[in-house]
Amino acid sequence: MSYYFSRILKGSFEEVENRVKRSLSEEGFGILTEIDVQKTLKKKLDVDFRKYKILGACNPPYAYKALELEDKIGTMLPCNMIIQQVNHDDVEVAAIDPVASMQAVKNEALQPVAEQVQQKLKKVIDKI
Amino acid sequence: MSYYFSRILKGSFEEVENRVKRSLSEEGFGILTEIDVQKTLKKKLDVDFRKYKILGACNPPYAYKALELEDKIGTMLPCNMIIQQVNHDDVEVAAIDPVASMQAVKNEALQPVAEQVQQKLKKVIDKI
Repeated sequence: MSYYFSRILKGSFEEVENRVKRSLSEEGFGILTEIDVQKTLKKKLDVDFRKYKILGACNPPYAYKALELEDKIGTMLPCNMIIQQVNHDDVEVAAIDPVASMQAVKNEALQPVAEQVQQKLKKVIDKI
Repeated sequence: MSYYFSRILKGSFEEVENRVKRSLSEEGFGILTEIDVQKTLKKKLDVDFRKYKILGACNPPYAYKALELEDKIGTMLPCNMIIQQVNHDDVEVAAIDPVASMQAVKNEALQPVAEQVQQKLKKVIDKI
């Protein structure tokens, strides 16, 4: 079992980023956080890294359900999607699989919520 | 094995939040993201939730090592700390245990990095 779903897409990094954001929005995910990994590593460590962003996506009704069932689940929220340049024409996107990442959480009630979000994130990836 | 480390502290939410931020900084963690869960749930779902924040903490040299070893590990970064009001005088803080959350990642080279960050986050919690 992998901990993510991914796809490689053609186009510029910025185009793919916009398509990811549109697809997330269509599935009811807001973007609560955005980290530009390339810029952060340049600023903090002065290293040159490829284009790489982390988007923190949150579907509020599911996040609320998860928090009601498991009060420390915020340590695993929001659900991240990454976008990274893999070579000149190829951009890879990947979403965390919440079922895999939450397997350390021993709470059976949370399982169906994680599965529903998993299905939504799979759709996000498919529809980009 | 739990997926987090936690402590309950006396004081106001805001005091504890400041102490968490200072402790993170002392262990070399910058705060890249901050989500006010109470405000977000009010705005998106019009529900009243207790005070609850998610801080996305990143120790750049370790994040860089992890990304070099496992290119999709950004789906699990940064490491989250939460702060929540549990009752009038008590505020709970919890940090993700990266060793537990990354057990779905089948990459042995990542293990020592996750263990080092785990030790640092334990110190953050102890020193608050």
